[in-house]
Amino acid sequence: MLIVPESEIANLITRQAAFDAVEAVFAAMASGEAYNFPVVREALGHEDALYGFKGGFDRGGATLGLKAGGYWPHNLEKRGLINHQSTVFLFDPDTGKPRAMVGGNLLTALRTAAASSVSIRHLARADAKVLGMIGAGHQAGFQLRAALDQRDFAKVIGWNRDPAKLSSLAAVAAEAGLPYEAVTLDGMAEADVIISITSSFDAILMAGQVSLGTHIACMGTDTAGKQEVDPALLARATVFTDEVAQAVSIGEAQHAVVQGVIAEAGIHQLGAVINGTHPGRQDDKEITLFDGTGVGLQDLAVAAAVVELAVEKGLAIEVDF
Amino acid sequence: MLIVPESEIANLITRQAAFDAVEAVFAAMASGEAYNFPVVREALGHEDALYGFKGGFDRGGATLGLKAGGYWPHNLEKRGLINHQSTVFLFDPDTGKPRAMVGGNLLTALRTAAASSVSIRHLARADAKVLGMIGAGHQAGFQLRAALDQRDFAKVIGWNRDPAKLSSLAAVAAEAGLPYEAVTLDGMAEADVIISITSSFDAILMAGQVSLGTHIACMGTDTAGKQEVDPALLARATVFTDEVAQAVSIGEAQHAVVQGVIAEAGIHQLGAVINGTHPGRQDDKEITLFDGTGVGLQDLAVAAAVVELAVEKGLAIEVDF
Repeated sequence: MLIVPESEIANLITRQAAFDAVEAVFAAMASGEAYNFPVVREALGHEDALYGFKGGFDRGGATLGLKAGGYWPHNLEKRGLINHQSTVFLFDPDTGKPRAMVGGNLLTALRTAAASSVSIRHLARADAKVLGMIGAGHQAGFQLRAALDQRDFAKVIGWNRDPAKLSSLAAVAAEAGLPYEAVTLDGMAEADVIISITSSFDAILMAGQVSLGTHIACMGTDTAGKQEVDPALLARATVFTDEVAQAVSIGEAQHAVVQGVIAEAGIHQLGAVINGTHPGRQDDKEITLFDGTGVGLQDLAVAAAVVELAVEKGLAIEVDF
Repeated sequence: MLIVPESEIANLITRQAAFDAVEAVFAAMASGEAYNFPVVREALGHEDALYGFKGGFDRGGATLGLKAGGYWPHNLEKRGLINHQSTVFLFDPDTGKPRAMVGGNLLTALRTAAASSVSIRHLARADAKVLGMIGAGHQAGFQLRAALDQRDFAKVIGWNRDPAKLSSLAAVAAEAGLPYEAVTLDGMAEADVIISITSSFDAILMAGQVSLGTHIACMGTDTAGKQEVDPALLARATVFTDEVAQAVSIGEAQHAVVQGVIAEAGIHQLGAVINGTHPGRQDDKEITLFDGTGVGLQDLAVAAAVVELAVEKGLAIEVDF
């Protein structure tokens, strides 16, 4: 079997490869070729850690396996290690034998960024010019870079609960040669595309703060109780997601569905748009919203892409297992 | 991190080491120090394979992780590979980083054998002389060898749906210098200890075919619908298990509980007997029954023991991950 250590991932995967892998697996999920297994997520009662498994099977891509790991909140301060720790394990679907073990930390950041990027390609207006960021933590930079690949953006605007952190968004915008401006939440009305990437447990962005024709990617809500936007915004929007079952249970849509302002049956898979079985955006006034919850198949897809690249470049470690 | 390939396991683990690991983790489960996560088990719709994850955390043993794998029924005939394929992944509970990857095929056989062996040590009569085996497949040999370690048995008797396969039991008995006899199910009345290890979906052993004072280990039932013994036998017996939640859902006890002949509250953890918080067998006429369903923590415990042995003997492969 093959091993691709965390330290090699940055040398192997590109944003484009992550984008292609995530786009393909969203399409496979919508066509029924790929499906995610039930998620296991446990509070260990040790080091305040959350740990679990996200698995799935993509028949077309012949990808089977899981991401195992979680969140160790004291890693950085106690040990100088990053707090999110994960590893992807791939299996041969024909035999059940382990095929590869791949460091999952950078991949998780890239697959999450790729998901909102895929949503922008397929749902944002072609003439989108202003990109709005809500949240300025470590993951926000990944989301921003991946979003800038998809449209000819002319400006980045940002909001964060702690304004001091907004400099990191300004730096990424500068990297891309784009002007950057800090705004209030009302200022988000200028944005053609908005990405929210926070750990919030209350709505930050209100329905009235969004202009017609905007595409919004809500990427921070992945747990029951978390929330980034006003449920009324989902009622104003056409709502898409990676996986409907997760959107209504742990995604941004959980609140709007419980409050009855949208129905589960009205939430569409982004993969259906990729496949052409859903028309996607229908006019320039429509608000589209992507509820990105994060599924195991995304992790498996980018890990499988990395293994292929590692084999090509001779960087995979082979172990006789 | 450390890798212990399947090919090294037979050189490292002993029946005694597997026994010690399983006995300790059953005790930890009963004391609340260790717990199993929800089991993921999926029919893939590919190669008729069943695949999934059994995870858990043992705080005292500092063991965290999962066994991933399953059953590929065409492996042997199509590819000359064994049908059960599994791998154990251990993580550092302090940091979430992967610690070890261990071949899980032989370990699964040994931990299943160790479970019935632990039940015999703690529940069978001290003067047990006749060991009865129901089932003569590949796993039966493991169960038989592990059982023979626990009492001064004088004779082995066996029953199998296909009598032609009973020669494998006779061979293991001969290995131990013991006489062997094929019997009818009524002939099981002679046994002081009975182990059932079949893939049956109907009761094989009836309540009236078991003598007073017998200890029975039902080891084959690990899925909803499977069944090895008459529910009335559970009503006659004091029932123990590895994990009560699994016993009533996927174990032998599922049928007796649904039929109302025993109550879930009347099923005891074997670990409580090991810990001395349950008295175990109370007299020589009592029938005791162990419902061995197989939990992830057993796999983690034997894998952790193997890693320790591999490090001692310099056989663990170290990979910079």
